[in-house]
Amino acid sequence: MNAEIIAVGSEMLTPERVDTNSLFLTGELNNLGIEVVEKHVVGDDRGRLTRTVRRALEHSRFVLISGGLGPTEDDVTRDAVASALWRKQIFHADISDAIEERFRRMKRVMPEINRRQAMVIDGAEVLSNDRGTAPGQWISAGDGVVVLLPGPPYELKSMFTRECLPRLRAMVPPMVIRTQVYRISGMSESDLDQTISPIYKVYENPATTVLAHNGDLQVHLRARCETESEALALLADVGGRIEAALGDKIYARDSSTLEEVVGRKLRERGETLSVAESATGGGLAERITTVAGSSSYFVGGFVTYAVRLKRELLGVPAETLEQFGPVSAETAAAMALGAREKTGSTWAVSITGNAGPTADEPGANGIGAPVGAVYIGIAGTKGTETHHRVWPSSDRPRVRAFAAQMALDMLNRAIG
Amino acid sequence: MNAEIIAVGSEMLTPERVDTNSLFLTGELNNLGIEVVEKHVVGDDRGRLTRTVRRALEHSRFVLISGGLGPTEDDVTRDAVASALWRKQIFHADISDAIEERFRRMKRVMPEINRRQAMVIDGAEVLSNDRGTAPGQWISAGDGVVVLLPGPPYELKSMFTRECLPRLRAMVPPMVIRTQVYRISGMSESDLDQTISPIYKVYENPATTVLAHNGDLQVHLRARCETESEALALLADVGGRIEAALGDKIYARDSSTLEEVVGRKLRERGETLSVAESATGGGLAERITTVAGSSSYFVGGFVTYAVRLKRELLGVPAETLEQFGPVSAETAAAMALGAREKTGSTWAVSITGNAGPTADEPGANGIGAPVGAVYIGIAGTKGTETHHRVWPSSDRPRVRAFAAQMALDMLNRAIG
Repeated sequence: MNAEIIAVGSEMLTPERVDTNSLFLTGELNNLGIEVVEKHVVGDDRGRLTRTVRRALEHSRFVLISGGLGPTEDDVTRDAVASALWRKQIFHADISDAIEERFRRMKRVMPEINRRQAMVIDGAEVLSNDRGTAPGQWISAGDGVVVLLPGPPYELKSMFTRECLPRLRAMVPPMVIRTQVYRISGMSESDLDQTISPIYKVYENPATTVLAHNGDLQVHLRARCETESEALALLADVGGRIEAALGDKIYARDSSTLEEVVGRKLRERGETLSVAESATGGGLAERITTVAGSSSYFVGGFVTYAVRLKRELLGVPAETLEQFGPVSAETAAAMALGAREKTGSTWAVSITGNAGPTADEPGANGIGAPVGAVYIGIAGTKGTETHHRVWPSSDRPRVRAFAAQMALDMLNRAIG
Repeated sequence: MNAEIIAVGSEMLTPERVDTNSLFLTGELNNLGIEVVEKHVVGDDRGRLTRTVRRALEHSRFVLISGGLGPTEDDVTRDAVASALWRKQIFHADISDAIEERFRRMKRVMPEINRRQAMVIDGAEVLSNDRGTAPGQWISAGDGVVVLLPGPPYELKSMFTRECLPRLRAMVPPMVIRTQVYRISGMSESDLDQTISPIYKVYENPATTVLAHNGDLQVHLRARCETESEALALLADVGGRIEAALGDKIYARDSSTLEEVVGRKLRERGETLSVAESATGGGLAERITTVAGSSSYFVGGFVTYAVRLKRELLGVPAETLEQFGPVSAETAAAMALGAREKTGSTWAVSITGNAGPTADEPGANGIGAPVGAVYIGIAGTKGTETHHRVWPSSDRPRVRAFAAQMALDMLNRAIG
């Protein structure tokens, strides 16, 4: 069972915009066992769209079209699909009345051009839009189906879920989808793939996807079977071997983020956390506080960007800064200790490093920290530890993101 | 002059991935006056790709294809394009030798399958790849041109810039492109568009694009003329009227970010900055320190997430916190004053607010801050000012991003 998705709109042919509706639609179709085999973006051009629809229908059973259902001359989808299927359009007075009523409720008068939205292709089923004026259409054509959906994602998602999913489910053999997510930190994407691809590559079911974002990795397994027990057995088999291969590199067996995992542990234990950052400039605290409710364990932090503030706010000894430099294990340890002391938190994490783009000036020790050098300090009830890494990158945002990821990973391991 | 872009690769037909090469290519083609009229994504399927290439060439002069040039059986682009054009492929020993040499330099032996990358479509010009093994191909076919480019963006961009741009320039009438960027803060996207669309809507040249990201707005004007003076005159005309309509909402007349504009002013005056954040949790400091060299004016900051740290680290009076609550103009002012004093900076900005998802508990004053309520404090040489806004959103990341944007905007206006 194959589908093609067509996004309509000249704005999606500019250098700034991508079509994202197709990602949502692909996920939903895949869950039904329908594969998306081609995607297209066509401008507001009746002739091109007519050709694209006709060709898609020649080779795929389902053709989903998003956008171009508005009231203006630029909205060509209805006309193009009618041409592609050699059908006429019929004015539906009830749709026009409903649109007029919608305008009335917003205390506005319906412009005359909105009547165009009440034109329905002969033989189409009308799909209701509970979030906008443009109704959708579901058209059976031979063995195929053409579906017209509105462009705004908020409208499209609701219409697809309410109106299309039940119709599609009735057309495909019933299947059960079960997924397993692993979240991983502390290894590179290529190391991860080398470790687990021998396991997952031999299976088409479950389907495996590896996602990577600044050192934060995810493995998604998706099993699609006739029964739930079959699906769960497949996941247990492949997932079990992946777990054995990755060990403690896995920090979550669901979609929890690393900052959520850390937060959950702290909350359970009634412990608190503070941070002291230099290179990441607030990015670590920002990430920790993306979690709603983080105020119950995160007390606060320091961004000590100027060297003197490491001394003045955190109490890092002047000799430490002078002898080892601000980017050093010794300074990282002192920063974490200082943050813990000043805030009274159970745990404190520090980051100092050089995110680039240029190497630091050599300090009293004659050594300037190279770009990508990062030191992490963690202070807790049992003492202080430090970790060190040099990223082979002079990409400032990337070094900063990797440093924050490493700090959270180390903290998570330290908490245990 | 029209172009179609085809991205090849089954991974781009999953719910997780979009093709972004086409954005870069569209920008470059538009600069030459070539319009992109359709975009396609096709999986690793020889038959479907052959059909898509043939159809694209029927209706567009330029067909650019990215991806599918690797050495494996899944890499079908060479074969599909050869079929689409009814041409054979020829083995190029020099390409094979160059790939082998590349492997040798990396101390590896070239796998036999990599010889496939040395197959060149009859009549094609070979496009060198200085960042990977897969060479590209430039094929004239009748009036049209088919271009094969590698999938990795890093390889594609270099190949396109070095090999394709000069060839395309020789085929299109010479045109001069000049652009004008305005960056705007302190108004909503819809207010911006209502203000300036009556000005820009009447022109096709310059082309106008409005971009919005969490309260940070941009207007791009792109004039395309036969001479530079014509282009500059068009930009001066339309741009001048946009500037008059927007006044001091414009914070930059180039692509500078708000944090860069603020940083430049501070550096010129030899002034320094610190921050004290609550609701944004480090996000304001993080944004300020995205600017390389920000350490010359940004000294550091405080993330006082727990109420008691507002008192202990910033010296906000207990009475202020009790009487007005931690989310209040009075607390925002005291936070900014405290940060300025503790760090000795010229300027200090504070943010306190409720980013959601739930309303704060009512404090001693009986009032709990509603979701979206944000107070900004700015302390400088001439005293302290505060600003207040309630965003009609319970989307935590959005409220936080808007709050940081507002704080930077207010600081920029205060600096003057």
